[in-house]
Amino acid sequence: MTGKVFLIGAGPGDPELMTLRALRMLESAEVVVYDRLVSDEILALMPKDAETIAVGKCPRHHPVPQDRINEILLEQAQAGKAVARLKGGDPMIFGRGSEEAAYLIEHGVDIEYAPGITAAQGASCSTGVPLTHRGLATSVQYVTGHRQAGKVLDLDWKRLADPDTTLVIYMGVSNIGQIAVGLMTEGLSEQTPVLAITKATTREERRLVSTLGNAARDVREADVINPTLFIIGKVVSLYGENAAELFEPVSAHA
Amino acid sequence: MTGKVFLIGAGPGDPELMTLRALRMLESAEVVVYDRLVSDEILALMPKDAETIAVGKCPRHHPVPQDRINEILLEQAQAGKAVARLKGGDPMIFGRGSEEAAYLIEHGVDIEYAPGITAAQGASCSTGVPLTHRGLATSVQYVTGHRQAGKVLDLDWKRLADPDTTLVIYMGVSNIGQIAVGLMTEGLSEQTPVLAITKATTREERRLVSTLGNAARDVREADVINPTLFIIGKVVSLYGENAAELFEPVSAHA
Repeated sequence: MTGKVFLIGAGPGDPELMTLRALRMLESAEVVVYDRLVSDEILALMPKDAETIAVGKCPRHHPVPQDRINEILLEQAQAGKAVARLKGGDPMIFGRGSEEAAYLIEHGVDIEYAPGITAAQGASCSTGVPLTHRGLATSVQYVTGHRQAGKVLDLDWKRLADPDTTLVIYMGVSNIGQIAVGLMTEGLSEQTPVLAITKATTREERRLVSTLGNAARDVREADVINPTLFIIGKVVSLYGENAAELFEPVSAHA
Repeated sequence: MTGKVFLIGAGPGDPELMTLRALRMLESAEVVVYDRLVSDEILALMPKDAETIAVGKCPRHHPVPQDRINEILLEQAQAGKAVARLKGGDPMIFGRGSEEAAYLIEHGVDIEYAPGITAAQGASCSTGVPLTHRGLATSVQYVTGHRQAGKVLDLDWKRLADPDTTLVIYMGVSNIGQIAVGLMTEGLSEQTPVLAITKATTREERRLVSTLGNAARDVREADVINPTLFIIGKVVSLYGENAAELFEPVSAHA
């Protein structure tokens, strides 16, 4: 009898930001296939006798290729297991959850989704900087600032340079200089505030406040590392006013 | 002694899509101030002896004005209460959570946030339509399609008409005709697929598949009501392939 795959968004880091649905699915898993961005505290919530398969890195520090991840999920489901596929954030936002779903469904495997708090939301609640705010941002856009090795960052700067939209860049540390120049060339002020949040909602969360004009230099000098999210736009002007320090990452129900 | 206000995202509807943090805060509340979009099943999770204050509608069906909501929260906190401010979705995305936070902090009240699964994420996991997908959408943008009475919908159609971005329109039922025309005028094909999801993740969830060219007519003929979300873009072509029917709203831990 074929098993089942739960495509689970584990949220931004703090285990308490998982949904009840995600926790229920994780607790029912016989095998857990997880990414690099899933924290140890979240993995600690799975059943003690569940098998684990890490696919974020293989021994030589290359991630397991997507095709192989798909096969692993299929093999485990075909062995009759209840498989939890744990991803950081939300499986439907830069998570490739839909690619895995399509492959599994094509091979006759049942799936279920659990959405997750994406990093932008975690960073927003952690820092007090909203993603929309009357008078400052009427919309929010999530973009990835990373491309595969050898590919150019082909973003449409003219569309992105909107002073009334909050722009959130995922995975943008190595390209932040290019991103800032692109946005300024298309009209965003060099004074536009930028907030870089590293490991949002975890105990290692770090924040850097800058501007488009200075972001590349500031990020380099502060030695900002991944995973880091950039929130760009007028909403960042609220940083510090909305009591960011009140959000303390805590463990899930102990 | 001053109380405290928890600004809680209750998620899209299904109580199981609340975060563990949101549930913990709700369970610790002495007063619950809630919006129209928060379901009865979620309200059932609060302590039995908690007071409730509905601010989504007042007796003549006008919502309580934002200034008055701010005052209610402040009064309750100043009375020493632990106040849960429950909102549909995420307080930082079209939720005005940051306005309430700013007011409370200015008056010396401590706040804490719990992010919530926003309707776009709930609808995505419910229908199997991803918000980003390799080859179909490299980014996602959330926009509100509603303006206050008497104000024009001043969206920047040129920026929004991006065939490589998934566009999610919140609160757009009454303006979907104008939205579709705006996007088509700026170059999106009339064949661009549109998915309307009403009351996503609840037992009353309804879906309508259409195109930009036909959306206004189809929405009118099907008598689509609020709250409805529109997902516009190539990702909608995956609808039906990714086993939408597998997501069954369930109650939270009974």
